Amino acid sequence: MRCLMAREPGGTPGGERIRDVVLDPGLELGAEAELLLYLASRAEFVSRIVRPALEGGRLVIADRYELSTLAYQGLARGLGLEKVRRLNRWATGGLKPDAVVLLRVDPSTGRRRKEGAPDRLESESGEFFRRVAEAYDELARNEPEVVVVDGDGSADDVERRVIDQLASRWPGTFDVLRR
Amino acid sequence: MRCLMAREPGGTPGGERIRDVVLDPGLELGAEAELLLYLASRAEFVSRIVRPALEGGRLVIADRYELSTLAYQGLARGLGLEKVRRLNRWATGGLKPDAVVLLRVDPSTGRRRKEGAPDRLESESGEFFRRVAEAYDELARNEPEVVVVDGDGSADDVERRVIDQLASRWPGTFDVLRR
Repeated sequence: MRCLMAREPGGTPGGERIRDVVLDPGLELGAEAELLLYLASRAEFVSRIVRPALEGGRLVIADRYELSTLAYQGLARGLGLEKVRRLNRWATGGLKPDAVVLLRVDPSTGRRRKEGAPDRLESESGEFFRRVAEAYDELARNEPEVVVVDGDGSADDVERRVIDQLASRWPGTFDVLRR
Repeated sequence: MRCLMAREPGGTPGGERIRDVVLDPGLELGAEAELLLYLASRAEFVSRIVRPALEGGRLVIADRYELSTLAYQGLARGLGLEKVRRLNRWATGGLKPDAVVLLRVDPSTGRRRKEGAPDRLESESGEFFRRVAEAYDELARNEPEVVVVDGDGSADDVERRVIDQLASRWPGTFDVLRR
């Protein structure tokens, strides 16, 4: 298989342990500690999973990466985009994605699709999620690698839209995703 | 009581959870993730314990702080002093100790005093600990706030030496420690 799917935070033994801490709904954490935990998990993810896969010629699809950190911690938590970008660059050795797919759905669709009990981040207020949504909109306008895709409809519909948009923006690069 | 004793990593609910991860001898972690975890714990420690105590007029005595990070991650792990200093400054909001007491014992005394099973850091090689010891020596020569104290002998002996040296370098500041 030429494609690797991975999730973040998590994906490595250290990352999964960090995920348990940072997403624990029973734990209070300051914004700085929250950011540092996400970046610790990401450092493991990049060095143990992403770089070896890329060196082996694979395409890596990650569920979350730097854009989420910019939206949540940089903007919604108010730590500042430039500071978060700099810390993220150090943690990842500067590894950037070729493309970031942002699936946009309305809040009620998002809530309907949610499974299981809310984690620490998902337990935040509606006001916090309004700030997160605005943050993603701002980043989508300013970050050239972001592709906004309508996330409404069935999984097959959304998948087709994602692949079509990637193929039209980067011809050839994502052909491996077509079935 | 005008004095607060605390340990680090740990000391807060989030910090204790992070401590469990970073010191787990069964876990492999890269140097970057290790540093970020220590700093996440320290950010919680400073904002929830140290700053409130200082604002209440108390003297805080912490078992480890930035100097250990400079020695272990900055020098012995090779991440670089200036980088670690900068990341630490961000995590702590720039809070510096007035004094750092470095207890020096020979390696056999250190091993004899050790209780319980070794944690992830304590499981490192002799070569690693030689680098850590050299790192502390280098830092003690260059960091003006470091006070090196002979750690040999009984706990009472060592305590007396620590208090005498603090009192002679900073007259008045540490009087609260005298019994």
